[in-house]
Amino acid sequence: MVIDLDRTSNTPLYVQISSQLREQIRSGELATGANLPPERRLAAMLGVNRTTIVNAYRELAAEGLISGHVGRGTAVAGASTSSSDGPYEGARSEMPWEQLFTSTTDVMNTTLLRDTRIVSARSDVISFATGIPTPELYPIETIRDLLDGALHDAGQLLLQYCPTEGYPPLRAALAARMGDEQREVNPNDVLVVAGSQQGLYLLARTMIEPGDLVAIESPTYLGALQVFRAAGARLLPIPVDADGMRVGLLEDLIGRRRPKLIYTLPTFQNPTGSSMSFDRRQRLLALSARYQVPIIEDDPYGALRYEGRSLPSLHTLDRHGSVIYLSTVSKMLFPGFRIGWIAAPRPVIERLTQMKQIVDLDTNPLAQWAVWAFLERGLIGPHLERLRRIYPERRDRMIATLERHVGDAMSWNRPAGGFYLWCRLRDGLRSRDLLAEAAREGVAIAPGESFYPDGEGESTLRLNFTLPSEDEIDEGVARLARALDVLRASRAGVTTRIEAPVTPIV
Amino acid sequence: MVIDLDRTSNTPLYVQISSQLREQIRSGELATGANLPPERRLAAMLGVNRTTIVNAYRELAAEGLISGHVGRGTAVAGASTSSSDGPYEGARSEMPWEQLFTSTTDVMNTTLLRDTRIVSARSDVISFATGIPTPELYPIETIRDLLDGALHDAGQLLLQYCPTEGYPPLRAALAARMGDEQREVNPNDVLVVAGSQQGLYLLARTMIEPGDLVAIESPTYLGALQVFRAAGARLLPIPVDADGMRVGLLEDLIGRRRPKLIYTLPTFQNPTGSSMSFDRRQRLLALSARYQVPIIEDDPYGALRYEGRSLPSLHTLDRHGSVIYLSTVSKMLFPGFRIGWIAAPRPVIERLTQMKQIVDLDTNPLAQWAVWAFLERGLIGPHLERLRRIYPERRDRMIATLERHVGDAMSWNRPAGGFYLWCRLRDGLRSRDLLAEAAREGVAIAPGESFYPDGEGESTLRLNFTLPSEDEIDEGVARLARALDVLRASRAGVTTRIEAPVTPIV
Repeated sequence: MVIDLDRTSNTPLYVQISSQLREQIRSGELATGANLPPERRLAAMLGVNRTTIVNAYRELAAEGLISGHVGRGTAVAGASTSSSDGPYEGARSEMPWEQLFTSTTDVMNTTLLRDTRIVSARSDVISFATGIPTPELYPIETIRDLLDGALHDAGQLLLQYCPTEGYPPLRAALAARMGDEQREVNPNDVLVVAGSQQGLYLLARTMIEPGDLVAIESPTYLGALQVFRAAGARLLPIPVDADGMRVGLLEDLIGRRRPKLIYTLPTFQNPTGSSMSFDRRQRLLALSARYQVPIIEDDPYGALRYEGRSLPSLHTLDRHGSVIYLSTVSKMLFPGFRIGWIAAPRPVIERLTQMKQIVDLDTNPLAQWAVWAFLERGLIGPHLERLRRIYPERRDRMIATLERHVGDAMSWNRPAGGFYLWCRLRDGLRSRDLLAEAAREGVAIAPGESFYPDGEGESTLRLNFTLPSEDEIDEGVARLARALDVLRASRAGVTTRIEAPVTPIV
Repeated sequence: MVIDLDRTSNTPLYVQISSQLREQIRSGELATGANLPPERRLAAMLGVNRTTIVNAYRELAAEGLISGHVGRGTAVAGASTSSSDGPYEGARSEMPWEQLFTSTTDVMNTTLLRDTRIVSARSDVISFATGIPTPELYPIETIRDLLDGALHDAGQLLLQYCPTEGYPPLRAALAARMGDEQREVNPNDVLVVAGSQQGLYLLARTMIEPGDLVAIESPTYLGALQVFRAAGARLLPIPVDADGMRVGLLEDLIGRRRPKLIYTLPTFQNPTGSSMSFDRRQRLLALSARYQVPIIEDDPYGALRYEGRSLPSLHTLDRHGSVIYLSTVSKMLFPGFRIGWIAAPRPVIERLTQMKQIVDLDTNPLAQWAVWAFLERGLIGPHLERLRRIYPERRDRMIATLERHVGDAMSWNRPAGGFYLWCRLRDGLRSRDLLAEAAREGVAIAPGESFYPDGEGESTLRLNFTLPSEDEIDEGVARLARALDVLRASRAGVTTRIEAPVTPIV
């Protein structure tokens, strides 16, 4: 359920809300029996007064479209008979669709994630919740020139099907970029994928049978949790500290639990920003080799180090051919081209290629060509230097503003690279409560719980500093401070709310 | 194993072959113990003399890289020790990769398909084996202008993430295109996918549990066979005749066998080119409603009718909300953008969207924008008119040339639309044998067996008339005629070869 409000319109907000809900009920998007959010929560999500929601709900109730009483929940009463001349009749399909679906997709959507997305999409909200690189820094003019020249020179080829493995010069350029003096990477060991999310998906499909155990960091990348869960994996969470995954704990468990795979983001980990120490990298590789458990190294942020010395990737250190390396241009360039890649031993690349052929045949060749040209012409170096100059300024701006406004209510780290601050609320405050209050004030955060495999982390949150401008950082943090004030004030009165058990994200 | 020969080079062909094989052995692409193709077959595939292959193999054998004897098969003997300073060491990985893979991907690659792809990729071969629209007709200058303007006006938005469901104006434009007076399509019932192959994959993942039965046409689209097999489906083949799927046979089986899904290409079916009659469409919809078995209607070619009256799609006729419609711009525009779409009842779209979020997050927004702009500006109509004028000329040219050269050796249909002629060899000739002879002559065909779920159709083949120019059609058919002559001559001597059992494609 998504509602777009136009605050510049003459139409009252409650009418905008009721008419969009009416349309969603009539079209079947909101099915009969579906629960509507409580008034207070929807008001917070949309940044309007509770009275506005009460008025909208009353109107729909008067039309017989919804029913229920204030405080006891409100539900869709069914499409009005006038819907028979409305658009699609899918809602009245006689197919028992719910019985026809596989169980795979049941696990994927939680209220918390949906709420975060709804808040983040509001145009009047400053979002700290995303993982989007600064749009003002996208090299748009360069891409314009590259695409224009490419279509002129080779349009027939670049609007054509492409080998499933990827555009050969791009595979070669990525291989060259990954290699160093100690270790060459063969272009045939590189597979181009439609973003690293697709890479993860193909890996899960190729390596995980339902019930297989996967060792993952806790917290970790949300998309990985979803992919592994959809593949039917059981998860073995290994905590992360300032030096990355606590490999010693994995060492204690690996012999007994025998995971099928180890999934790690060793460099500027999402969401914590921490990097695995050199020593732990070595120990992790040794464990992987000893127990023959492959490592998936997910590295979207590795090129975005702002200070300190680079650490070699696991893939570079690997001497046993046990690391499957995964990265993307989405964070270092922009996400829209959907270009990522996997470097791995040949048998893995071959299997993944067979799977990709089934999943989507090939990846957009024009986008592959543009990424190749950007690398080939040496443009990526200066572009990354620019990001490495500007992003730490934003990080430091956010930290300084947080210190000024909310230092008494939360703490945070200062990551040496990547996109995110990882924060912890003091005094037992919960970030899912902060999400609601912050939405009311007009700022979006990513509640930390979403990144934990087991419903932990209720006091944590992730703040992104690359999408908002410096002014938006200032204003967003000020809003966050007001939300925290409200939250703490309300907490003083309602302590029982804090004691309530947290529903784990399943 | 792919070998690229440069016939303009001074390097002898046998040296080009041996050095590429050497590289593939050293890199591990050809693993120790892997069988190399028999000399005669490789010679046919590459379009060289058998002596060339003998010389290449002898050289590699002398280096200890391969072993075996003429006539008894040749296999890779293992990487030479000098490979330790070669590139990637993946081939010597200690990981037991084969034991780590899921069983899903075992079913996908057959020798016949691989051979067809190898032949089709040769630059000196005229290919009738693909499904590629005429590259000279791609509207490249228009796309250049559209992309240039789009990046100038909205680069930050179009190089960004995009809603998983698709770029909203494109969903609306596709919905508008599909609707008519009787029936509107709601944009929320449309999902944009990365080509219709991805649409099929998402459907299979969302609807099929291992062991489920899927009713499919026999023969049918190869990519669908692969997707359904990879999902673990059992297949219920329903033969196709000149009026499309033989719905009466399905009627006899559906009550007893209770398939989970019906998959059909009712219009200009791939590979046969036939279209389902109006009467059968109605009967199929009635069956689907009565037994509550959803229909997947795959319609890549529906817009490409060259004569006769249009038939309404199953989706348009559907009054029970039981049809899931799937199409793509790959055939009517070009394949490189990877844009397809699904129109279906809302619960299906919601499930597919959740699955797509896991599979690849979203589809390239710049490509979506360009397709939207092409539709919005009314450019698709004139473009399709152009195709509808030129494609039947190519079809008729191919038919006339076939009549002149090979009318005694094979028969074919004259489809009213689409991309393909569907042919049958006379006198018990097999198309897999023709593939080899035709490769020697420099023309590629698609053996019909590949399109059958059960290894039938050994005398059938599919010829594409959109990729080759009119001159290439003439020359390609002449080469095919020579190949057929050789095949018939050899057949006269080696009848036992024809009697040998066909290995089904499993």
